[in-house]
Amino acid sequence: MSLPLAGVTIVDFSRILSGPYATMILADLGASVIKIERPGRGDGARALPPLKDGKSGYFAAVNRGKRSIALDLENAEDQALLRRILARADVLVENFRPGVMDRHGLGWEALHAELPALVYASVSGYGQTGPDARRPAYDAVAQARAGFMALTGDPGRPQRAGSSIADLAGGMFLAHGILAALYDRVRTGRGRRVDVALLDAQLALMEQAVAQTAIGPAPQANGTRHPSLAPCEAVAASDGAFVLAAGSDAQFERLCLTLQLPLSDDPRFASNAARLSHARLLKRLIEAATLEHPRSHWLAKLTAAGIPCAPIQSMDQVMKDPQLMARNMIVEVLDRYGRATFKAAGNPIKMSGMEDRPARPAAPELDGNRGDILRWLES
Amino acid sequence: MSLPLAGVTIVDFSRILSGPYATMILADLGASVIKIERPGRGDGARALPPLKDGKSGYFAAVNRGKRSIALDLENAEDQALLRRILARADVLVENFRPGVMDRHGLGWEALHAELPALVYASVSGYGQTGPDARRPAYDAVAQARAGFMALTGDPGRPQRAGSSIADLAGGMFLAHGILAALYDRVRTGRGRRVDVALLDAQLALMEQAVAQTAIGPAPQANGTRHPSLAPCEAVAASDGAFVLAAGSDAQFERLCLTLQLPLSDDPRFASNAARLSHARLLKRLIEAATLEHPRSHWLAKLTAAGIPCAPIQSMDQVMKDPQLMARNMIVEVLDRYGRATFKAAGNPIKMSGMEDRPARPAAPELDGNRGDILRWLES
Repeated sequence: MSLPLAGVTIVDFSRILSGPYATMILADLGASVIKIERPGRGDGARALPPLKDGKSGYFAAVNRGKRSIALDLENAEDQALLRRILARADVLVENFRPGVMDRHGLGWEALHAELPALVYASVSGYGQTGPDARRPAYDAVAQARAGFMALTGDPGRPQRAGSSIADLAGGMFLAHGILAALYDRVRTGRGRRVDVALLDAQLALMEQAVAQTAIGPAPQANGTRHPSLAPCEAVAASDGAFVLAAGSDAQFERLCLTLQLPLSDDPRFASNAARLSHARLLKRLIEAATLEHPRSHWLAKLTAAGIPCAPIQSMDQVMKDPQLMARNMIVEVLDRYGRATFKAAGNPIKMSGMEDRPARPAAPELDGNRGDILRWLES
Repeated sequence: MSLPLAGVTIVDFSRILSGPYATMILADLGASVIKIERPGRGDGARALPPLKDGKSGYFAAVNRGKRSIALDLENAEDQALLRRILARADVLVENFRPGVMDRHGLGWEALHAELPALVYASVSGYGQTGPDARRPAYDAVAQARAGFMALTGDPGRPQRAGSSIADLAGGMFLAHGILAALYDRVRTGRGRRVDVALLDAQLALMEQAVAQTAIGPAPQANGTRHPSLAPCEAVAASDGAFVLAAGSDAQFERLCLTLQLPLSDDPRFASNAARLSHARLLKRLIEAATLEHPRSHWLAKLTAAGIPCAPIQSMDQVMKDPQLMARNMIVEVLDRYGRATFKAAGNPIKMSGMEDRPARPAAPELDGNRGDILRWLES
């Protein structure tokens, strides 16, 4: 069985994270991705830490298995070569600021008229429309403006999430749009324009906060506590904190039994809504029990009782986690000589008939596949 | 032009968030979603706060435009009806713990033998394989175990991200898998099994942390600071903090000009890598300038200079943000009588030929579409 996106060719002008993450997802599903990079420095992510022997492990992770050709969009010969590549492509991806592709004669209207079957996908800070469309943005800007930062951390001390959520979500929604447009194109023969904004993508992850704010009161930052479930947060054991969650009444009853807490007949804790109203009190009652023993004691007890729980793992622990290992979620990324050089998060989309290899092909050298690509154009 | 997923029918057994978020994305793109709910209480999200007149605004947001039929999987008649529905479906979605669907005769092997074209998509806490496959999990458990919580917040004080990132990412990767399998099915006529774990999905969002840990040293929580870019974080103005980001040398030079900081010839700040090594010092030098004026002053100045920046908005501010309004990112959700009752985050995937309505159809009443669904089966 072939990979589900075998035969799909993506021409990828995108740099750094949001666009490249979208094409990484699609490449993991079998698409062939050709990076169009500017001569000289190429994708700015090539210089981003962490570096090993001068190569970016970050670039290697996100661009594994893609190919690269360096083209100067100001140069007529390079533009002609680019047109030949686009004529063979199914999808174009770009994450410039709105207007940049148009200046190079590569805007949606121009290309759609010329290549009506091409799916044209753009991800930008603010999207193609609206008063701020042409402003630059980064992940942190979208996290702050969409309200996500204000809801992360302790009240009054906004925090960034531990990874570039707005960039990643932008890339993920872009990939949904591309896939839906490809499916649709089978019937219609026509490509569509997909337009995703980091700001919109970040807001789309705030399904609870938007619903809550509309009804009121607006949610506040809550530390580790879930806004709609209780108990569901970090609690203290004798040697540090761990996370537990009892979202259903049955789980809460088992939790009370496990902790020997006589709360299951208390009306303040009789339903999730009641527990949520008394969440601060409930946490203290739980901790009065959990502080008596170390984390390992409680994780074993709660696991045996079927109550969701976890250690708050450091990255060193995560990289050796047996469940993640069993799921092939830490993969090797090869260098150009085929040596295991970097590590990356694996593909979280497991699928029947799709091999899930423990090592991934190298990210390309800048312009490293020009010869291949020229031969493919002749074929 | 019709919606890209027009004609795709999804039978959705999933509850709460991860699965329903996947089918919400697909419904926004035109798929028809039939929720199979247990009689009596249905999807547990129907009871989750925020509530308005006894109805959950959270359920309404995530289940807008879906239909519902209540079926008892233990009852032979209901099972027969379910088989008729499945025979007309393109996709099955479920988020039970592994083993539950098999107990009802609805496991992948059994259904694939019977309905080879059906795409079968599962999202669970730990996935269908590995030592912890059968354990229960919630979003917070995956955030903690995947290392995300330890990287969010100030060092030594782990925080949950401001929304249910692991659940949402699980749903988003599930939707990618479903869409890729649907595209593939056009060629092969055969459905595939998609298997996504919340734990894997959370780790897949940690592309930087995994690459960094493999090369060393392992990353630590960084407050609002980006791990690979500097400056890119919250800084203090005279009346509070705002976010700025200058990822390129050109942006950094403009930032220095705007703040009148004589740093552009200083070798400690000559490249992103150098700035990252001196990020704590750089923040103080920037704040020595920004503390002189309020946030509004700096946001205007930096915007004029083309430097990415944003206020750290509260949800009340977000709900009125002009760019989000212009992008139709806060939509009304109707009630069963067609009245605008709830609000929800809109569809971040904008697409040509796809109408982006400012109001969305109601979420279904439990078993509220039985008549429709029976008529559709006869048609």
